[in-house]
Amino acid sequence: MEKIRTIEAQTHVGQHVRLQGWLHNVRRMGGISFVVLRDGWGTIQAVTENENDLAPLADCGLESVISMEGVVTAVSQAPNGIEIHQPQFSVITPINEHPPIPLNKRQIKAGLPTQLDHAVVVNRHPQRQAVFRLAAGVMAGFRATLNDMQFTEVQTPKIVASATESGSNVFKLDYFGRDAFLAQSPQFYKQIMVGVFERVFEVGPVFRAEPHDTSRHVNEYVSLDVEFGFIDNHFTVMALLREVIAGIFANLQANYQTELELLQVNLPMVPQEIPHIHFAAAQELIWQLHGEDVRGEPDLSPQDERWLGAWAQQEHGSDFLFVTGYPMGKRPFYTHADPQNPAYSNSFDLLFRGTELVTGGQRLHLYPDYLAALAQAGLPEEPFETYLEAFRYGMPPHGGFAIGLERLLMQLLGLSNLRLATLFPRDMTRLTP
Amino acid sequence: MEKIRTIEAQTHVGQHVRLQGWLHNVRRMGGISFVVLRDGWGTIQAVTENENDLAPLADCGLESVISMEGVVTAVSQAPNGIEIHQPQFSVITPINEHPPIPLNKRQIKAGLPTQLDHAVVVNRHPQRQAVFRLAAGVMAGFRATLNDMQFTEVQTPKIVASATESGSNVFKLDYFGRDAFLAQSPQFYKQIMVGVFERVFEVGPVFRAEPHDTSRHVNEYVSLDVEFGFIDNHFTVMALLREVIAGIFANLQANYQTELELLQVNLPMVPQEIPHIHFAAAQELIWQLHGEDVRGEPDLSPQDERWLGAWAQQEHGSDFLFVTGYPMGKRPFYTHADPQNPAYSNSFDLLFRGTELVTGGQRLHLYPDYLAALAQAGLPEEPFETYLEAFRYGMPPHGGFAIGLERLLMQLLGLSNLRLATLFPRDMTRLTP
Repeated sequence: MEKIRTIEAQTHVGQHVRLQGWLHNVRRMGGISFVVLRDGWGTIQAVTENENDLAPLADCGLESVISMEGVVTAVSQAPNGIEIHQPQFSVITPINEHPPIPLNKRQIKAGLPTQLDHAVVVNRHPQRQAVFRLAAGVMAGFRATLNDMQFTEVQTPKIVASATESGSNVFKLDYFGRDAFLAQSPQFYKQIMVGVFERVFEVGPVFRAEPHDTSRHVNEYVSLDVEFGFIDNHFTVMALLREVIAGIFANLQANYQTELELLQVNLPMVPQEIPHIHFAAAQELIWQLHGEDVRGEPDLSPQDERWLGAWAQQEHGSDFLFVTGYPMGKRPFYTHADPQNPAYSNSFDLLFRGTELVTGGQRLHLYPDYLAALAQAGLPEEPFETYLEAFRYGMPPHGGFAIGLERLLMQLLGLSNLRLATLFPRDMTRLTP
Repeated sequence: MEKIRTIEAQTHVGQHVRLQGWLHNVRRMGGISFVVLRDGWGTIQAVTENENDLAPLADCGLESVISMEGVVTAVSQAPNGIEIHQPQFSVITPINEHPPIPLNKRQIKAGLPTQLDHAVVVNRHPQRQAVFRLAAGVMAGFRATLNDMQFTEVQTPKIVASATESGSNVFKLDYFGRDAFLAQSPQFYKQIMVGVFERVFEVGPVFRAEPHDTSRHVNEYVSLDVEFGFIDNHFTVMALLREVIAGIFANLQANYQTELELLQVNLPMVPQEIPHIHFAAAQELIWQLHGEDVRGEPDLSPQDERWLGAWAQQEHGSDFLFVTGYPMGKRPFYTHADPQNPAYSNSFDLLFRGTELVTGGQRLHLYPDYLAALAQAGLPEEPFETYLEAFRYGMPPHGGFAIGLERLLMQLLGLSNLRLATLFPRDMTRLTP
């Protein structure tokens, strides 16, 4: 008999099947026993009035690994409308310790530290399972959208020679007796690879040694990076980002209904054209609507972003808003200035429900511009020598963006902490599990 | 006019099109000028007898970024049977320096150090482009095959608390004032995730501080990792690996003909059932066929693998051979012993054309077995505490394998050095580009 998965049972009504998984719950109610099995995809309930059927499970606690055979039966009041009748159990791995938190309650009641300390087991909870299954769906949707648009996937080094991009907040390691660093982003490499493939993406870990202990920081996360050439300006990049975001949500909509329902998530509509507002106009708008004068500030505060998000919702009916033209002062040296107004940049942030979700923009592409930008920033050329080689030998106008996988999940699912969107988070005090 | 890519030109014969890319070559032969443009996908040649057409390129060296319009014309002796006639050129990024190596010769003549020092530009060479496009194809085929079999993708931490798996050859880093390490493999995490999703895979960087300077070692590479539960033994894992390898090659066959032809690669046939031989029988066979007595050696030498590869080819007509049951002594502590003969393990290597390509096997799954294995190996329990939590709370029989992306490419393409299968390799002396 072929093993089936819990989520396949509905298509086997009337058949004798075999399932394998974890002993999720056992309840007895007035002579009737309910045994719930959980596998990698969901749960299913077996029902029997014969106490002897449970004999093989006599010495087994919850989380024992078991095999269960029986007849799939349609029962309207059962979860998902099906149950297993005439169950026969056998034990694969008996367990007698109680798990660190109950896995069979609908909600997890344990505090965050307990959840994180025991993530190895807590991630088995159906809600946690669903979060990380959606993470896989986000990555798959990201790649599928870009592959359809002739992007090529690359894998670039995570050990790098210099702490270049920002100069700070990098992890240092001992590399055969000399210093090396962990890449804060694949920024330089993805730009270099535009010179090879024109259109590239990468999904991989990035490392930030930021000494911040907030609900919105972890020190290692998964970055979904895109870079491509032959753009007009940052609006070409924004148009692509719109397609990528829409592609990600379309994939979740099509293939992850079970997880979305379990987590009670409503996917946002992605407008055909996402509204956009210039940074300076956004500050002016905040002044007019809320009487707070943030004009001249070099960046938007979280409160500013919330106000702008509310405005986009009210004015455009959109969960999304592009803010364009951030001041050059706050952007990295490779940022392309607005040719019309060089104090501002050809860059953007994408706000989702009033919080920054994605940063991107147009980059410099001319070698002399890079030399000038490094001089302007007071940076030496030598550590950037191999990066600059790409521009010495011809690069097209290009740009890109990076989406933080965990941040996207956090905002989409309304999670209270970025760590809950991370399988095994790394923060200032946490290196395990 | 919509921009088209070089490889799309064949479907636009007779049409006026626009292409953008790099100035790959300019030749003049008896009043006729040939201008070759290279983009992210290939090259195309424009032809004109009117010298004035080239005027916009007068100040441009090779690798200048250009735009080219003209009429796609079928010409039997042209590369790919097409040329651009009546070309009009414009310059996007002019370049006047000669690239570090000629990019428009069919073969790269430069030595390995030069190629690696200037990989930023050398990777633009059509042959190098093709290698890394195939890398993307291998990853895509790997994921597609596993997604079809209900595997879930995971992304696990690369910064870890202890140098556990082998105890040596790990990179150490400064993590907010304490020691941390770079993951040598996602082994522990992928096993843990079998407890969550049953069937998982991961594509990501792994870091090996091995002080080896050979043509077959780099210190950071991309590992294609698989792990899954509810197996019978290592033969279940081998059967899955066969499907994954076949899926990877099927994807290359279907979608990467251009690159395979450019590199003159013949994809191997993957037999419906890959032949297998037990480690002890393999040593016996070498003794009988070659008179070399390696019986009792704890591992196979490269020469042994070549002999076995030749035997598989001759006896079974197969490029592939599984060697099973390696002695326990050489395998890591989580390896599952052969229940019939505990000196040997339920593990395997997959040889491809006489060289090891993949290692895998069945793992221990019972908590008491882990405690015994750690004691046997003389390892303390404490650094493994969170890993062991997975087994304390129920794990099914499981196993998996890891494929080195660069090694697969090297062997498939017949490259002389693993570094040539790596975009920007890291070795004992190389941290840039």
